[in-house]
Amino acid sequence: MLKTFELLATDRHSKARRARLTSAHGVIDTPAFMPVGTQGSVKGVSPRELRELNTQIILGNTYHLFVRPGLDVIKHFGGLHNFMNWNGPILTDSGGYQIFSLAKLRKITEDGVEFQNHLDGARAFISPEIAMEIQTLLGSDIAMILDECVPYPCEYEYAAQSTEMTTRWAKRCLEWKRRNDETANQRATDSILFGIVQGATFEELRKENAQAIVDLDFDGYAIGGVSVGEPEEEMMKAVEWAEPFLPVNKPCYAMGLGTPPQLLELIGRGTDMFDCVLPTRLARNGTAFTTTGTINLKNAEFILNKNPIEENCACESCREFSRGYIRHLIKAEEILGLRLITLHNLHFYLNLMDRARTEIEKGTFNQFRKAFVAGYKTRDAVTVE
Amino acid sequence: MLKTFELLATDRHSKARRARLTSAHGVIDTPAFMPVGTQGSVKGVSPRELRELNTQIILGNTYHLFVRPGLDVIKHFGGLHNFMNWNGPILTDSGGYQIFSLAKLRKITEDGVEFQNHLDGARAFISPEIAMEIQTLLGSDIAMILDECVPYPCEYEYAAQSTEMTTRWAKRCLEWKRRNDETANQRATDSILFGIVQGATFEELRKENAQAIVDLDFDGYAIGGVSVGEPEEEMMKAVEWAEPFLPVNKPCYAMGLGTPPQLLELIGRGTDMFDCVLPTRLARNGTAFTTTGTINLKNAEFILNKNPIEENCACESCREFSRGYIRHLIKAEEILGLRLITLHNLHFYLNLMDRARTEIEKGTFNQFRKAFVAGYKTRDAVTVE
Repeated sequence: MLKTFELLATDRHSKARRARLTSAHGVIDTPAFMPVGTQGSVKGVSPRELRELNTQIILGNTYHLFVRPGLDVIKHFGGLHNFMNWNGPILTDSGGYQIFSLAKLRKITEDGVEFQNHLDGARAFISPEIAMEIQTLLGSDIAMILDECVPYPCEYEYAAQSTEMTTRWAKRCLEWKRRNDETANQRATDSILFGIVQGATFEELRKENAQAIVDLDFDGYAIGGVSVGEPEEEMMKAVEWAEPFLPVNKPCYAMGLGTPPQLLELIGRGTDMFDCVLPTRLARNGTAFTTTGTINLKNAEFILNKNPIEENCACESCREFSRGYIRHLIKAEEILGLRLITLHNLHFYLNLMDRARTEIEKGTFNQFRKAFVAGYKTRDAVTVE
Repeated sequence: MLKTFELLATDRHSKARRARLTSAHGVIDTPAFMPVGTQGSVKGVSPRELRELNTQIILGNTYHLFVRPGLDVIKHFGGLHNFMNWNGPILTDSGGYQIFSLAKLRKITEDGVEFQNHLDGARAFISPEIAMEIQTLLGSDIAMILDECVPYPCEYEYAAQSTEMTTRWAKRCLEWKRRNDETANQRATDSILFGIVQGATFEELRKENAQAIVDLDFDGYAIGGVSVGEPEEEMMKAVEWAEPFLPVNKPCYAMGLGTPPQLLELIGRGTDMFDCVLPTRLARNGTAFTTTGTINLKNAEFILNKNPIEENCACESCREFSRGYIRHLIKAEEILGLRLITLHNLHFYLNLMDRARTEIEKGTFNQFRKAFVAGYKTRDAVTVE
């Protein structure tokens, strides 16, 4: 079987672990960061550049692709890998998060969710089974169950009911997959299915739900409903509460976050996989990541600056261009400017994971984490979205 | 001396010629196309990509760089080559064209032109000497004299007076250069200076001015005041009228144009160099060049199209991506879409020049030109700007 999760090293001083997940389109070394390819493209970056950045896996947004170009188109092209010419692993979300954050006139029932899409208002219905069918059609290497992602803040009563429904939806996704595995639907067989732990900011719900989802026995587990506007402390707790229930021989994925220090903190709490739009989204605003925090290259202080975004950074942008030149490009609204910052930021995130893997192997992850977090200053208000 | 223009082959059936111009930053094989780097960046393209496209020379817009980031900044970075990390030849225009088309409240006197820039309205003054100083500071390999580019249509009387003034300005630019060459201003010495033939759409003015400019003895000659809204026929005539006056051992550059058939027609009329924003500007609108004309990838007909933009095209976009995928990117306003079309369009223009050079060497340019022009249909209204 392709679906293996091999633990290579564990940290003695934290819950950090170094592992290797094997999927139908290749190996993913964890801790791993997944650049986000919302609409069939990681914003501003070509698949060739992703390969040059040593990207091992990207995330595709089911909802966005469902709305545009639509499933008929992607089916015609033989799946998302062929359509976008990316031959590495792809994790797809179930579309749930975007249905609950972007779509209009949502109506949630036990059966599924009816909505109008945000582009042309066309009506659609997605059930747990349909979410599985869509992800199978996309050719997903790692599929996610359909879940309801409740907003922050959320009443206990609503969160409890929603979490229970998400568990029933998770079971239906798993049953769909087992049926399709039995009937030898090759794509379903090849894909890995992750359950998602919900429970909002309530300890009791998070723990109960973690146990319930693990009891269903998925290939991996995600912590959902984080990075929805809650304080960082709540985000950390959501992972801490769920983690003891998750089996050590399965990957753990914290969805939709976060800043570089948050990633290291979560690795130290047992998380293996991350996706986040921050490196690409902030780049478009002129913001670049460095080991001492973010800098906004629009600032006048960089006009005459001949240094690269970060000294000793091995990325193409830092090897070839100065802060002053990139600042000029951003101010002049030249596309090359956001491209160069995007490349740097993705390199920064991917390289941080590479470093984390090395430090775990060396047994020095915890010192590294502490030193990095202490040296990283949040100068700009970074909103985790 | 670096400044050589070596004729390698001439066509028996037209005035086309294959030559090699040597500049301070390297060799330019002609006929040559120069991608336009308006604001210190060829829009959407990195210098590395330009090199991979076998770009030999780019154009920098003096006016745009003067306004932003400003000369102090570029001087601080040691010139435009260093600033933008492009080590090949750069031709700079004098800024005249943009002053007359973009800037506000222009006041032209014999001395020079006073204007307010289009960005923040700051006042500035550029004389022929200042235009030379600026281009020298930019580190231009090929500098252009300051000229007044009159609009189309233009009264004879105004065109005549303007053309005479441009000739006096040309003389002042040449005198500035000779003074600076004598005082061993290295950058001025290394640069090549082109005169510009004006004369609007008037045969008498064009011929008189060609003679007058050639009498001044420049390193090369440009045909200016074309591609300003005049019919294609007038554009061709402007070149035809001037060409017999231009020395065969000097390069001839038709400024700011044109479509692929126009380039071949002008090569057949003795033109060696071109610059044009069409390949980059039209790409941003979804328009791609093919040997049978342009196509707009926004069109619904391409939704399910698995072919590349053009069959057998060797560019990265055509090797790796389908029309259908690129259409999706353009419709979804993903930056990668315009990047891929831009790369294809630049490859198309550069490859067309490569083909023209080969056909001239083989003695078959004229057949090639006729066949290409006959096969190229202008489906979209292409505005030459």
